[in-house]
Amino acid sequence: MTVQSDSTSEALRPRRTVAEPARHRGYAQHTWQVSTSKEVSYEVVLSPGLLDPSNSTLATAGGPAGARSGRRLVVVDATVHRLYGARISAYFAHQAVEHEICVVDAHESVKSMDTVFEIVASMDAFGISRRREPVIAIGGGVLTDLVGLAASLYRRSTPYMRVPTTLIGMVDAAIGAKTGVNFRRHKNRLGTYHPSAVTLIDREFLRTLTPRHLRNGIAEILKMALVKDAALFEHLEAHGPRLVDERMQSAGSSDGAGVAEEVVARAIGGMLEELQPNLWEHELQRLVDFGHSFSPAIEMTALPELLHGEAVCIDMAFSAVLAHRRRLLDRGDLTRILRVMDRLELPAWHPVCTPELMAGGLADTVKHRDGKQLLPLPDGIGRVRFVNDVSRTEVDAALDMLVDLRGGADVPAMTSGKRGA
Amino acid sequence: MTVQSDSTSEALRPRRTVAEPARHRGYAQHTWQVSTSKEVSYEVVLSPGLLDPSNSTLATAGGPAGARSGRRLVVVDATVHRLYGARISAYFAHQAVEHEICVVDAHESVKSMDTVFEIVASMDAFGISRRREPVIAIGGGVLTDLVGLAASLYRRSTPYMRVPTTLIGMVDAAIGAKTGVNFRRHKNRLGTYHPSAVTLIDREFLRTLTPRHLRNGIAEILKMALVKDAALFEHLEAHGPRLVDERMQSAGSSDGAGVAEEVVARAIGGMLEELQPNLWEHELQRLVDFGHSFSPAIEMTALPELLHGEAVCIDMAFSAVLAHRRRLLDRGDLTRILRVMDRLELPAWHPVCTPELMAGGLADTVKHRDGKQLLPLPDGIGRVRFVNDVSRTEVDAALDMLVDLRGGADVPAMTSGKRGA
Ligand SMILES: NC(=O)c1ccc[n+]([C@@H]2O[C@H](COP(=O)([O-])OP(=O)(O)OC[C@H]3O[C@@H](n4cnc5c(N)ncnc54)[C@H](O)[C@@H]3O)[C@@H](O)[C@H]2O)c1
Ligand SMILES: NC(=O)c1ccc[n+]([C@@H]2O[C@H](COP(=O)([O-])OP(=O)(O)OC[C@H]3O[C@@H](n4cnc5c(N)ncnc54)[C@H](O)[C@@H]3O)[C@@H](O)[C@H]2O)c1
Repeated sequence: MTVQSDSTSEALRPRRTVAEPARHRGYAQHTWQVSTSKEVSYEVVLSPGLLDPSNSTLATAGGPAGARSGRRLVVVDATVHRLYGARISAYFAHQAVEHEICVVDAHESVKSMDTVFEIVASMDAFGISRRREPVIAIGGGVLTDLVGLAASLYRRSTPYMRVPTTLIGMVDAAIGAKTGVNFRRHKNRLGTYHPSAVTLIDREFLRTLTPRHLRNGIAEILKMALVKDAALFEHLEAHGPRLVDERMQSAGSSDGAGVAEEVVARAIGGMLEELQPNLWEHELQRLVDFGHSFSPAIEMTALPELLHGEAVCIDMAFSAVLAHRRRLLDRGDLTRILRVMDRLELPAWHPVCTPELMAGGLADTVKHRDGKQLLPLPDGIGRVRFVNDVSRTEVDAALDMLVDLRGGADVPAMTSGKRGA
Repeated sequence: MTVQSDSTSEALRPRRTVAEPARHRGYAQHTWQVSTSKEVSYEVVLSPGLLDPSNSTLATAGGPAGARSGRRLVVVDATVHRLYGARISAYFAHQAVEHEICVVDAHESVKSMDTVFEIVASMDAFGISRRREPVIAIGGGVLTDLVGLAASLYRRSTPYMRVPTTLIGMVDAAIGAKTGVNFRRHKNRLGTYHPSAVTLIDREFLRTLTPRHLRNGIAEILKMALVKDAALFEHLEAHGPRLVDERMQSAGSSDGAGVAEEVVARAIGGMLEELQPNLWEHELQRLVDFGHSFSPAIEMTALPELLHGEAVCIDMAFSAVLAHRRRLLDRGDLTRILRVMDRLELPAWHPVCTPELMAGGLADTVKHRDGKQLLPLPDGIGRVRFVNDVSRTEVDAALDMLVDLRGGADVPAMTSGKRGA
């Protein structure tokens, strides 16, 4: 591979071009074009029994091939540490890994560069080897986003591994490339694309997750179902509430892992299929943006009442109504979608959802989609169509219809802020 | 492109593998492999007359093709602003570009994340459009590294352009992919790889650079000459002092730009040839690391007495002696190299260079090269050989020889800290 240059001049000389006189007033310019590509590859593994002391997976994954692990810095969410700290320490001790546990209070309000600095300082103190000792991140989406950014910045990128302990982490936050922190009230304003070498997923961590946070994760699974996987939707329809009650440990099927594993695996597989060809988000027409067009405005206005997945769910309900009014979705399917949300005790509406808020939210989203709506609407269940011409009148009419359907005080949606947790 | 999965199972299911029982105690694992590649392409342009009000290059480069620029945030080094601020403002006004000038005090001691935050805040305040309004960075290596990191982090990457105003910037800092800031006394500990879409180089900025900073840049040019471009070395041999005196504006040749342009162009072309296949530094055996094996220790110990390029020059002199003692470089070529350094008033030795410092510096470097020395030594002028077996005895003997050759108090090297500026 060589730098592109004029083949008739000597090797080291750049291509000499005289730019159009009109634009550059006749200044002679030399131009070099540097073109290359970066290969990125990472693994996501459903990996049960991670903390079983005799299972070497966590101790060896992501390290140099063949080598037994030497040292690991393990960064753990404070809540997870309270619940699993003793087992984590016992695990690494049993695996004879020289390790340091760095406990980080990871919630949205401290998802900041200062917390990234804390993690960087512990990497410095641990004296991490740049290529051989991946940092291990164990926690929810906040923790893995923080460690991801620290690892990305440290010496311009250090390998790390993610062990998501929330459902959002398992099906979304810990399996893509994005890292990030909030900056001056802007969510995820600063960040990078830096996937972990390996993500290890053990559903057992979900045993201790609150039902509300579990449902929050199921909302993102419902998103994947609606945009591309009708069979996944049917699983949620048939087993949704039981999955929550049983914390995704199993859904009582005879075959070991059963439906919970199937549901998580389908959600992950679907997500990765969407991410892989668009890991850096150059393409702005994204299936996975379903539920993420009106929800930022809803989430920010209702703050702190709604969790992210709850706001996404309201957006999905609203988008389904928009789709129904455009005859993309028949009445039966609309009803099925809203019923799944009800049974999962996820909100389909919230009092902050005024016509102004919904229209304003869409206008904001257009700014992030380079001037287009690129609004994903369900085209039946399991398929999406992108539209660019939703009018204010249409927004108002759809909202009226949603309020008729789900705006009543007797609907679980109304009390979502107080439920669970 | 699809996610790799077992072709015999249904499309969305991951590849099911049962890991070796010995390693994973028989836990069934599902694995997805995500593989993709990121295309990176950018331009480096020798572009004279950048601030000529009638030259639209700076106002339009890096923006959407064909579109006349709308708005630009211009981040300028404070010293450069003092010297060129009026011309910069007049330029954008004449080009009818809505712009904001953000002046940043950019020197090594404030090369920190706090300064990055300042730049990010001005991006927020300007309300920059993520894809259409590249931030323009005008300044030395410190400024372009800072703006590069800010642009890299802002919304997980925003386009920017670089206009280097120092020689180091033109031939090194502003033409690669690296961004960075210092963190807790560690130089460039945090950073990313994020090249600017376009780098525009106008040697006219060098008119106001101090001779010492100009020589500092010439040291990096000498590096490129020694590792891969004997003709470039001959230019420095023939015209070095005049290039400094004339601030790289021309070297009196009859053909317009003349030798100064030739020298800068060869240095850039050579550098880009080395960077392109290794933009993310996966390969640790790098020609461009010549002069950068012992110099970090020298620079840090002599701080603030030596500039970076000066420490690099000492490293190159020492490496040349090592090469001579291994019969890679004959006495005549060693003398030529040291004479070029003398004539450029660049140091070839410094009192901090004890045997302990040189040996310790090499040991530190080995840590960053994954356990190997990978030491580039000149193999004649214009070629390099990598060696991995330099012993302490050899270091001591080479240093003795260098002190004999250049350790005298009458040698310009000795007074480098007080010269120029
Ligand atoms: N990088 C991405 O692509 C991406 C995608 C989606 C979301 N996110 C980010 O993820 C964050 C949301 O993630 P989240 O929902 O996991 O939030 P979170 O990390 O705040 O975790 C939710 C709560 O659960 C606790 N917790 C974690 N694991 C637990 C367990 N096993 N048992 C009991 N409690 C546990 C946490 O301490 C926290 O209080 C947001 O900051 C969002 O921006 C990132
Ligand atoms: N990113 C990379 O690949 C890379 C490569 C090499 C160096 N660097 C970084 O670059 C920095 C050194 O760069 P530098 O040598 O340009 O230092 P610098 O940016 O500090 O500039 C040197 C001095 O010259 C002043 N200056 C700049 N332009 C001027 C002009 N036209 N006229 C008069 N004064 C001017 C500056 O204000 C400063 O005082 C270091 O921080 C180093 O880490 C980065």
